[in-house]
Amino acid sequence: MVRAGQTAGELQGLTDDAVSRKAPGSDRALARLTAADLERVNSHILDRMQSPVTLIPRLAGHLVASGGKRLRPMLTLAAAQLCGYRGDRHIGLAACVEFIHTATLLHDDVVDASDLRRGRDTANALWGNQAPVLVGDFLFSRAFQLMVADGSLPVLKILSDAAATIAEGEVLQLTAAGDPATPEELCLRIIAAKTAALFCAACRVGAAVAEREALDAPLADYGMNLGIAFQLVDDLLDYSARQETLGKTVGDDFREGKATLPVILAFRQGGAEDRRFWNRVIAEGDRRDGDLEQALELMRRTGALDQTAARARAYGGKALAALDRCPDGPPRQALAELVAFNLERTA
Amino acid sequence: MVRAGQTAGELQGLTDDAVSRKAPGSDRALARLTAADLERVNSHILDRMQSPVTLIPRLAGHLVASGGKRLRPMLTLAAAQLCGYRGDRHIGLAACVEFIHTATLLHDDVVDASDLRRGRDTANALWGNQAPVLVGDFLFSRAFQLMVADGSLPVLKILSDAAATIAEGEVLQLTAAGDPATPEELCLRIIAAKTAALFCAACRVGAAVAEREALDAPLADYGMNLGIAFQLVDDLLDYSARQETLGKTVGDDFREGKATLPVILAFRQGGAEDRRFWNRVIAEGDRRDGDLEQALELMRRTGALDQTAARARAYGGKALAALDRCPDGPPRQALAELVAFNLERTA
Repeated sequence: MVRAGQTAGELQGLTDDAVSRKAPGSDRALARLTAADLERVNSHILDRMQSPVTLIPRLAGHLVASGGKRLRPMLTLAAAQLCGYRGDRHIGLAACVEFIHTATLLHDDVVDASDLRRGRDTANALWGNQAPVLVGDFLFSRAFQLMVADGSLPVLKILSDAAATIAEGEVLQLTAAGDPATPEELCLRIIAAKTAALFCAACRVGAAVAEREALDAPLADYGMNLGIAFQLVDDLLDYSARQETLGKTVGDDFREGKATLPVILAFRQGGAEDRRFWNRVIAEGDRRDGDLEQALELMRRTGALDQTAARARAYGGKALAALDRCPDGPPRQALAELVAFNLERTA
Repeated sequence: MVRAGQTAGELQGLTDDAVSRKAPGSDRALARLTAADLERVNSHILDRMQSPVTLIPRLAGHLVASGGKRLRPMLTLAAAQLCGYRGDRHIGLAACVEFIHTATLLHDDVVDASDLRRGRDTANALWGNQAPVLVGDFLFSRAFQLMVADGSLPVLKILSDAAATIAEGEVLQLTAAGDPATPEELCLRIIAAKTAALFCAACRVGAAVAEREALDAPLADYGMNLGIAFQLVDDLLDYSARQETLGKTVGDDFREGKATLPVILAFRQGGAEDRRFWNRVIAEGDRRDGDLEQALELMRRTGALDQTAARARAYGGKALAALDRCPDGPPRQALAELVAFNLERTA
């Protein structure tokens, strides 16, 4: 297990083998802890994504039923267990959280006219833009139906607030997209809204169903900081050579011209020539052969990757500190290992 | 005023002048009845569409703040009055209904990859696809936040069910889109889901805030049938010569290759040559100069336009019959005039 305070050097010491033995984004303790509940969540998801309109399960099935990591619903399940919850409500609400996440994924993939013109190819190639948007709307509405069926106004408030925050974060990202001069603070604000708000809400739902108000704030802090750390590690892995092990492709964000934190830090600490490069490849979207290698070299030279890893570790540390305010036991240990596992991915 | 039973011939007798004096989609009695409440709804809308993310009010403002017809929120206001409601909750919930409607409009306008290739130009030209999708998501989430703030589970159920039905209807339309051989029953099922479900929900919210359960079913029937009549008249107007008076353009649906009821009826009643024409212009999207005129001629010859008007009148008649089960007074009269006004548009 990795401690939040470990240095990049120590993390580098982990063998490839240790990394490849684990599934990305989850860890064994959390998977074991939530296995029985998660099976029920999965049937609930399959059951509730049905519709007489057959394109809906067909399209949603690509994402929902294919069994993604289910990280967010696992957070709800583990948080409910941590709060000593003994009922069934966490099952439907964990499905809800996954529906919101999937709706967001579908809408994220909608292709801009400009992207199409650049010949970008996504999942939308198969379905056009309209189907993912409308099926996303269906899943989002279905999530609200599930919440209403649950019947708790505090839970409805947590999740509807999260949904609005996510949408605001997505729009904010759109306005900042492609600007390597984006301030770091704005970049983190976007991550907090578009990614971490749902991690935070997923954890809070666990406290809400158990009616353990005192655990709402610690679980909120845990989820928010875990979510930020998680996104930073994801952004880092997009430029890290080790990621083939984890089943990702190097340079996806680069090819989409995303101004993620590694880019922002490399830009800020680069000279005039570096900045001209970043403006060309990110802001202007003029990318040529050899540019990805050049980007990686500039990130190494400025220390942007190590700095991103350090930020991720700092947020991971805050997540662990929030857990110290929660009752000890297997759920807390599993949530702590999730933080460590996430940081291990940077090795 | 036009009675639901009037024939197309009688409707034709209305002068252009009588039509042009009224704003489309509303009528004077309803506007008078709801004027004071609607002003409060409008401030509520302006207030609640704000966000620190400035692109949200900028983009939403194009649709929300520009003061559309506000027909759906007016239904909530009038229904609440009909039920003798004396509180304030109908204001926020009417704003909610308008947010859901606006989110749907934004998502409706998303351009398909194939449409882009055909060089289609929409509002998305200005903003790309992503911004309307994400701002729509924001408005949709905001609508749910408003409902949660209202705090009534019955209202939440009405509106979350409507949202899911609308999304299902939109996906269903997508799968049927561009097929002139679509069965009439399927066409009406799509209209009921994607358009009339929100009319229905908007009316039911009025009964829900007033806690007048006995009026829920009649108002639901009124809203559903009014909504279907409304959409049929809209589809008819797209092929009617008189529509310039009402500020619409002839042939928009035709140019988008939509298989609306007038097309479906003309196809069903046409010979082999007619069907080849409809398949070419609608299913294959191969439209040439003179095709719109030819389409209009085939619709006149088969009586498709008169038949669509007759269907609209039949649904209008059902809406009026539902009102007979509601207490009489100015709200009921205004809602009845709305039916009549809608049918007058076919003149």
